[in-house]
Amino acid sequence: MTNNLIGIRGSFFDFTDDPWKFVGEEEKSARFFRDGLLVTENGMIRDFGPFQKVSPKYPSLDITHIKDRLILPGFIDGHVHVPQTRVIGSFGEQLLGWLQQWIFPEEMKYKDRAYAKEGAKQCFENLLAAGTTTFQAFTTSFAVSTEEFFEEAARRNMLVIGGLTGIDRFAPADYIDSADNFQRDSARLIKTYHRTGRNIYAITPRFALGASNELMTACQNLKKEFPDTWVHTHISENPSEVTLLKDLHQCDDYLAAYEKYDLVGKKFTGGHGIYLSNDEFRRIARADAAITFCPCSNLFLGSGLFRLGRATDPEHRIRLTFGTDVGAGNRYSMINVLDEAYKIGMCNNTVLDGSIDPRQFDEAEAERNKLSPYRAFYSLTLGGAHGLYVDDRIGNFEVGKEADFVVLDWKAGQRAIKWHESLLVSDAGPTTMDEAAQLLFAVMILGDDRNVDETWIMAERAYKKTPTEQTASLR
Amino acid sequence: MTNNLIGIRGSFFDFTDDPWKFVGEEEKSARFFRDGLLVTENGMIRDFGPFQKVSPKYPSLDITHIKDRLILPGFIDGHVHVPQTRVIGSFGEQLLGWLQQWIFPEEMKYKDRAYAKEGAKQCFENLLAAGTTTFQAFTTSFAVSTEEFFEEAARRNMLVIGGLTGIDRFAPADYIDSADNFQRDSARLIKTYHRTGRNIYAITPRFALGASNELMTACQNLKKEFPDTWVHTHISENPSEVTLLKDLHQCDDYLAAYEKYDLVGKKFTGGHGIYLSNDEFRRIARADAAITFCPCSNLFLGSGLFRLGRATDPEHRIRLTFGTDVGAGNRYSMINVLDEAYKIGMCNNTVLDGSIDPRQFDEAEAERNKLSPYRAFYSLTLGGAHGLYVDDRIGNFEVGKEADFVVLDWKAGQRAIKWHESLLVSDAGPTTMDEAAQLLFAVMILGDDRNVDETWIMAERAYKKTPTEQTASLR
Repeated sequence: MTNNLIGIRGSFFDFTDDPWKFVGEEEKSARFFRDGLLVTENGMIRDFGPFQKVSPKYPSLDITHIKDRLILPGFIDGHVHVPQTRVIGSFGEQLLGWLQQWIFPEEMKYKDRAYAKEGAKQCFENLLAAGTTTFQAFTTSFAVSTEEFFEEAARRNMLVIGGLTGIDRFAPADYIDSADNFQRDSARLIKTYHRTGRNIYAITPRFALGASNELMTACQNLKKEFPDTWVHTHISENPSEVTLLKDLHQCDDYLAAYEKYDLVGKKFTGGHGIYLSNDEFRRIARADAAITFCPCSNLFLGSGLFRLGRATDPEHRIRLTFGTDVGAGNRYSMINVLDEAYKIGMCNNTVLDGSIDPRQFDEAEAERNKLSPYRAFYSLTLGGAHGLYVDDRIGNFEVGKEADFVVLDWKAGQRAIKWHESLLVSDAGPTTMDEAAQLLFAVMILGDDRNVDETWIMAERAYKKTPTEQTASLR
Repeated sequence: MTNNLIGIRGSFFDFTDDPWKFVGEEEKSARFFRDGLLVTENGMIRDFGPFQKVSPKYPSLDITHIKDRLILPGFIDGHVHVPQTRVIGSFGEQLLGWLQQWIFPEEMKYKDRAYAKEGAKQCFENLLAAGTTTFQAFTTSFAVSTEEFFEEAARRNMLVIGGLTGIDRFAPADYIDSADNFQRDSARLIKTYHRTGRNIYAITPRFALGASNELMTACQNLKKEFPDTWVHTHISENPSEVTLLKDLHQCDDYLAAYEKYDLVGKKFTGGHGIYLSNDEFRRIARADAAITFCPCSNLFLGSGLFRLGRATDPEHRIRLTFGTDVGAGNRYSMINVLDEAYKIGMCNNTVLDGSIDPRQFDEAEAERNKLSPYRAFYSLTLGGAHGLYVDDRIGNFEVGKEADFVVLDWKAGQRAIKWHESLLVSDAGPTTMDEAAQLLFAVMILGDDRNVDETWIMAERAYKKTPTEQTASLR
């Protein structure tokens, strides 16, 4: 971290509000400075605005001028499994079979500290190369893998959320751990890592299906003892899982299994939520809790189509993050996540226009499923921060926040992107917010990780794309 | 084209049969030579087999040794809209609105020969950079754009199928043309281009919804006059479209609109077929006609999930090609098409396991939806050729076929692919067919156009990836 004032000059795009609130006038939620200046001090944002207005206040400022790029707040990934880095995209199974066949055998290796360290390193490098600066992570049931996760984050000075991932059934005997051990190890890890540097600790029952009443009670105890911690888990991902769950936990719906143990509230995130009922959405909204939408994963495992327009219903708007869910998600890039999220939204749109079944007709919900570039990039930045309860620290370029950002090259990606973009803007690049938003849509639909040219953490460059290969290295 | 004998040495993977016939023993449909030799003469395959066996027969052969790569038959894209190259991935509409808002205004520009020429060039370059060597194309209702398409194909010596794209309603007045003009222009273009060089002509009514009875009759007349031509169109893509169609053409289902005019038979392809009934599938199978599955497009427009396991039902197995459907498909790479096809298959798999609705349970159909690497790459090569009735000429490395192939670098793509692949094979690369197939699965799920290192047309290299940028240039 540097003690000097640092200036970044370039074209900035960020959000100050939720675009779903502004149907038909989404630009009211966003900010675009074609020639902007971000001033940071010790990694924190000290000033931000049009270059002509801000620069006179800092006459001897050391300025890095980033040209022909769009600078956005760093991407936030709400749902990553660190120990699945190596088995990303494994073949042929839905959730429950996939866990047994591919995932637990690989996660077992994270009992070994050296392997856990290498896995964490690989995962962080993949995420930085994808423009992700903050993520919420699952580790394994082995404390060493949680330790290595936080140590790696600290070395990179990244704001991450994670925790020991508890499971005491529905996994191989060598993988599961007892509720008592989980509670003891979690308490120790919370004391060591929570609020240490930028680290945030989440009490992490893997999913209610893999948690006995004792393990759930351990989570309840931990949350009572450490009320400042986050809670992170899975919910309603796959129809067979939902059926099993209701039987095992003797509850009417999936959410109730977590409510029973006082876990659903602020700072609670459930991953997926594909099969949530309308009533569950209402209860999540009332509890001010969050769901992570993981489109790549939901399609890859064939889990189903998340009801984006329902989650964003103003009558019970829930907090929402988007996530890769690597390794069931097959791409580390949140840009690819937006591609798949757009597609799921459009499939919902067709269902909701009533053309297949007139009883499904809901024009407003259909519209809310259209993932415009405003809604999309809000979800990766300020929306993601809001979902994870870290919007007081990151998510946009507000003064006082921590300076994590991503530098997008809108011309990278598949060959076709350039001629397409020549329809949208001149060679000089975007001059208006609308032009910039159109380029961002091109990036999310035609682009991928190649469009991430640089990734910055606390005002220091942590990743730079190279022409031949994309590598992320330690500072 | 060269007159010399040319040898290509490397690791070859191709298919000799349909892997859907060999559930549980798919390797019986494929061929893998870790160290193989392909001998070509004037662009045609003269010999093929293990290097040790074939090379002694050609003592002074000029051999290009391609190392650390997998060589597959060139990819076949069953459904491309050449004049949508520039508006690829346009925002916010289902099929019918999307056509009016984005597509017709762009396609109108192809009335101008210079623009049509530039569009064709861009499209071909994008496809070569994606490893596609043969495709079936829509042009516009303007003859010049069809001419420029075939001229561009001829310059590149590529086997393509395409034709003047007829529409006489449901489009702007400046865009549509009369049935009489369509029949006259099509006849002239067939005489000029069909079977000229590698070109194949397809009578191309855009879709029955945009075709009056007169235009359909013109197609019927053309097919009668030129029975050797192909027929290419759209079918059952979007639920609103299907409803409108049945009303406009007074028929019980979408297929009947084409059957009425004797168009459904060998060499007929309908794009999409998402809402085909079981009865329509049976009639397509009996007619020996084909459907193109366009997963990127079907998701991008929210059209729906193609029933892959139904199309491959042995009781009524239809001919099947896979396609990008650019510009509703948002990626030129057939590798990305496989990613999305896998996901649609897995979503179908969940529906068919009966966990949502027990009445949907069909174990065999659920299984057929699992897109293994064998099924996937078969569909892009021999399967695609079979679907397009060109499997006598391309699709695998059989002696006598035309030598179009793609050279895959399995290590390219997003950063995560390498560590994943280190689980599958050693640094020396795949030594068995199973290892090669596992790498191909990694490529289709974690990779993209970056994995295409070279594309060869008739034994000449037409594309080579560069580190900084992927460009395809004329030979």
